[in-house]
Amino acid sequence: MVKIALLGFGVVGSGTAEVLTENKKIIEERLGCAYEIKYILDLREFPDSPFGSLVVHDFNTILNDPEVTVVAEMMGGSHPAYDFTKACLMAGKNVVTSNKEVVSTFGVELCALAREHGVRYLFEASVGGGIPVIRPMINDLSSNKVAKISGILNGTTNYILTEMRDKGTPFSDVLKEAQRLGYAEANPSADVDGIDAARKIVILAALASGKLADPKTIPTEGITAISLTDTHVAAAFGFSMKLIGHAALTDGKLTAFVSPRMVPAVNPLSRIDGVFNGILVNANMVGEVMFYGPGAGKLPTASAVVADIIDIIANRDADPKPILWEAATDSDMADFAGYVCRRMWILKSGAEIPAALAFDDMKVVDDTVALLGAPCDEATAASIAKVLGESLLSVYRVLD
Amino acid sequence: MVKIALLGFGVVGSGTAEVLTENKKIIEERLGCAYEIKYILDLREFPDSPFGSLVVHDFNTILNDPEVTVVAEMMGGSHPAYDFTKACLMAGKNVVTSNKEVVSTFGVELCALAREHGVRYLFEASVGGGIPVIRPMINDLSSNKVAKISGILNGTTNYILTEMRDKGTPFSDVLKEAQRLGYAEANPSADVDGIDAARKIVILAALASGKLADPKTIPTEGITAISLTDTHVAAAFGFSMKLIGHAALTDGKLTAFVSPRMVPAVNPLSRIDGVFNGILVNANMVGEVMFYGPGAGKLPTASAVVADIIDIIANRDADPKPILWEAATDSDMADFAGYVCRRMWILKSGAEIPAALAFDDMKVVDDTVALLGAPCDEATAASIAKVLGESLLSVYRVLD
Repeated sequence: MVKIALLGFGVVGSGTAEVLTENKKIIEERLGCAYEIKYILDLREFPDSPFGSLVVHDFNTILNDPEVTVVAEMMGGSHPAYDFTKACLMAGKNVVTSNKEVVSTFGVELCALAREHGVRYLFEASVGGGIPVIRPMINDLSSNKVAKISGILNGTTNYILTEMRDKGTPFSDVLKEAQRLGYAEANPSADVDGIDAARKIVILAALASGKLADPKTIPTEGITAISLTDTHVAAAFGFSMKLIGHAALTDGKLTAFVSPRMVPAVNPLSRIDGVFNGILVNANMVGEVMFYGPGAGKLPTASAVVADIIDIIANRDADPKPILWEAATDSDMADFAGYVCRRMWILKSGAEIPAALAFDDMKVVDDTVALLGAPCDEATAASIAKVLGESLLSVYRVLD
Repeated sequence: MVKIALLGFGVVGSGTAEVLTENKKIIEERLGCAYEIKYILDLREFPDSPFGSLVVHDFNTILNDPEVTVVAEMMGGSHPAYDFTKACLMAGKNVVTSNKEVVSTFGVELCALAREHGVRYLFEASVGGGIPVIRPMINDLSSNKVAKISGILNGTTNYILTEMRDKGTPFSDVLKEAQRLGYAEANPSADVDGIDAARKIVILAALASGKLADPKTIPTEGITAISLTDTHVAAAFGFSMKLIGHAALTDGKLTAFVSPRMVPAVNPLSRIDGVFNGILVNANMVGEVMFYGPGAGKLPTASAVVADIIDIIANRDADPKPILWEAATDSDMADFAGYVCRRMWILKSGAEIPAALAFDDMKVVDDTVALLGAPCDEATAASIAKVLGESLLSVYRVLD
């Protein structure tokens, strides 16, 4: 009998209890092994929950119980989630988590600690919610060198951009509606400023490169400045505006950043709408594969947490296969100034177009002039933007 | 040092040699273990290939060499592929394969043999080419009950249907072009008659249910009868015509069949075009996830074969986790007459519409009357078709 403790009984925590209970019979059959939830750590009481009697308030009850061998951390935030995770690993307990903030910030240390103590630290639910992507990248793309990852990694912003496109409602109004529907937090910054997507893209990039970049230092741009004119320009060219987490490995150097991008219709990410996520991976042997599904939500995210718990129980007698990451140093990172892509330039009507701005297509949309630029690097783009000055309303990277 | 033998040096076999060689350094690093290809079994000689010196013609050379612990079968066809697989498993060798014919026909016996002899039989490459789908279904959806699978499982027919839709070229002409391009075999029956898709959907259905249905007995309809009028009707309703392998588990009963279906635009399968495959899985906790990528091709398929080889080497010291299937009996299968879906009825212009044909929408397309019918079961659909007689040009299931 494997004894499990859940840290946190919020949305994902209560979903995890539900998945472990609802599908208990089929999971135990697959495992050939029984399990039970022994404790749920939360500050609150849940007298009306069927799991209410399992709630404890003192983390040490869990830490000091040698029967508990699997701990699922679903508290969110860095502290005390990181501290509790560290203590569990050091006590020889396996930990699974949905906490992208902890994985992206402390992943190097926590993976090393797991290795040192002969246990596992798994985090399938930290990226893409219920979408299987982390384990498939480790196991199924193991025969490949991953060259590029582009993902719609945040359901809230994708919902907002989809509504802006389909209903012509401006950003601020859609955000309010998303908050009303519970798709966006009262403080929406982590979503709309791209912070959540940055955490997720550094995790995916680390799976491809072994180097975990600091999510706070990668170029990160959110969606707050996107106007309806910008989405109209995208539509006029047959593109969709999406917030993309992007990672690439070129000559051993890692590029990772988050920004809104105009996605041409031929790219399967262009058609991933609403709260869904999609992660497109380019690898040297398989070519292009995509993982698609619900990027958030109670039961989908819990489904991934429980898949990690099952993985640990199923392999409890095998040597744990460690995930080995190093912290990315400056010399591991490509110079972002050299990042090359096509760009969409949106200028005030009548603006003078500098000679350096080579473009392939031009359309007039909502009293602006939209130019689909030829590929250029960030440094060139910045100098063109400087020349354009106030004539430039906005410029977007195109995802090719 | 793990010694690997390849059975078959055709498209997938030579691709597998290439992946194992090209990515050797990174794979060995991940494994912490060296490997080499010791033999390649083929009837032909390959004097100009860098792997030519590894070619042997006698299967017994491989079977009787105790150094060979992993065998990759990529011969295609049932015999001798099945016989060689069986002999290898019985000799205590792990086997991986891309051969859907063998897995779908002999999977129950071969999985049981692997278990009996303490080795593994893996077949990620048998469905969806390079797309990670089998291992993710086993590992990542392990926390779920899978309720429904709908897949575009055959790249050749998807290429043909895409060309028919986008270029307005009739089936027979596109088929010839596909044969010229190497996308279709000289004898295209396995693809265009849905046989290949039937093999793949029974494998996916077995992963969900534990019951392997006989691919020869499930209802299977190909794409040879699809006319341009049919694709025009699909387009007029905003649908795409796709060859869909479908499996569902309802009250413990399995439904599995292959047929062309009209796929509404909201379904992500509607936008999977050309030679790409997509597999949409509905499961009770995660909801809907999709796996997308190249469903065939030398290196993509080899990428999956090598992922299985890596899985075996990485877990060589662990207890093999057996896949346990039973042969599906009649009582495991749902009565297909009870299968309910919407249908698109395409009638000769001026045909009398029977009262039993309830429909939600009607359009006139290419001198036909196309009716988007309300949901009805197969038995009802058959009796309506009988009443319509020669007025009925065609009828398609809609994928909702």
